[in-house]
Amino acid sequence: MSDAETTLQDLRARVQQFNDERDWHQFHTPKNVAASIVIEAAELLEHFQWTDGPAAEQSPQIAEELADVFIYCLVLADALEIDLSQAVRQKLARNNARYPAEEYRGRF
Amino acid sequence: MSDAETTLQDLRARVQQFNDERDWHQFHTPKNVAASIVIEAAELLEHFQWTDGPAAEQSPQIAEELADVFIYCLVLADALEIDLSQAVRQKLARNNARYPAEEYRGRF
Amino acid sequence: MSDAETTLQDLRARVQQFNDERDWHQFHTPKNVAASIVIEAAELLEHFQWTDGPAAEQSPQIAEELADVFIYCLVLADALEIDLSQAVRQKLARNNARYPAEEYRGRF
Amino acid sequence: MSDAETTLQDLRARVQQFNDERDWHQFHTPKNVAASIVIEAAELLEHFQWTDGPAAEQSPQIAEELADVFIYCLVLADALEIDLSQAVRQKLARNNARYPAEEYRGRF
Repeated sequence: MSDAETTLQDLRARVQQFNDERDWHQFHTPKNVAASIVIEAAELLEHFQWTDGPAAEQSPQIAEELADVFIYCLVLADALEIDLSQAVRQKLARNNARYPAEEYRGRF
Repeated sequence: MSDAETTLQDLRARVQQFNDERDWHQFHTPKNVAASIVIEAAELLEHFQWTDGPAAEQSPQIAEELADVFIYCLVLADALEIDLSQAVRQKLARNNARYPAEEYRGRF
Repeated sequence: MSDAETTLQDLRARVQQFNDERDWHQFHTPKNVAASIVIEAAELLEHFQWTDGPAAEQSPQIAEELADVFIYCLVLADALEIDLSQAVRQKLARNNARYPAEEYRGRF
Repeated sequence: MSDAETTLQDLRARVQQFNDERDWHQFHTPKNVAASIVIEAAELLEHFQWTDGPAAEQSPQIAEELADVFIYCLVLADALEIDLSQAVRQKLARNNARYPAEEYRGRF
């Protein structure tokens, strides 16, 4: 099972089940989860704190840190009843209008 | 098209296309993207900076900020060739072993 | 009045007065202030998101963002009754023992 | 020596000396230091991730995390030749004009 075969909902259901089994939803206020996303994102950034090199990139821990960020994104989407795929499509459409490809090619 | 019908790969392809059209991959070093994830996550947290209340939660901007975090997660997964769904499953399996449901019910 | 003549307490008193005049201490729970430090730190990082170059460094906004981070550090020190100069000296002493200068010269 | 007797310059000098002895200034690009501030700030927030209670506040580690944030603020001030006390005074003056005390008493 890879990204090609896994829907967002598949992962949301797995994360929900994990938290259901532990009765952890009670801790997942939007504020706590938003703080958790930042905390995990900073742990991910820590791997690139002093370098941008290949050593850091090959670390198997980086996939784990990225998973942590993503898992809390799924928890927040659940807590606030956000459809992530729709949110991403809408954001890309907005960015598409804001940054026309011709005008922004190779620059911001 | 909702989270029930959208695969991770669907979204990865859309984000790739957006960046291809602008030739923006050149800016997406792992360090820059990891920094971007933190920056967007902090903008998300800003909505809960002084409150945890429903006013903040109903803001339509929150879905947009969450999409920003998620989009950069997809960019980093691409840059480092990480399969996100596998990374999430592996992390949940590890957490499952580390936090047995019986022992951790209702507490950390 | 420069850093050479300004004590930590001078700045703490000024920040206290600013918040006293607005009755803002009520919002300054340690959690909210800790979140604020991260949020302001991420705004500071945003100036270096895509570059490390001199253009970003010369921006007059960077001193302002750094001041924001520092102001919230002072607010948290107040809220938790932490003496910042002692905390810094203790941390440097600990790092001194942990990273002997001879052993760690030029590397981590 | 407490915050009442310690100038910003005193602490800047101590931090400079620590990094001089290890030849660590070479790693302190503004981008790396700004990233470090966020990373340490997130470790500080981690103490309040799931609670805002007194248990977290009494932790002796919090003063240490706050010192870490502050130390990197001093390093960045050095790297960019920013006078922190002036930056704080200017920011407070700006906020004073932006948030008149009468109008913003008890609210944002």
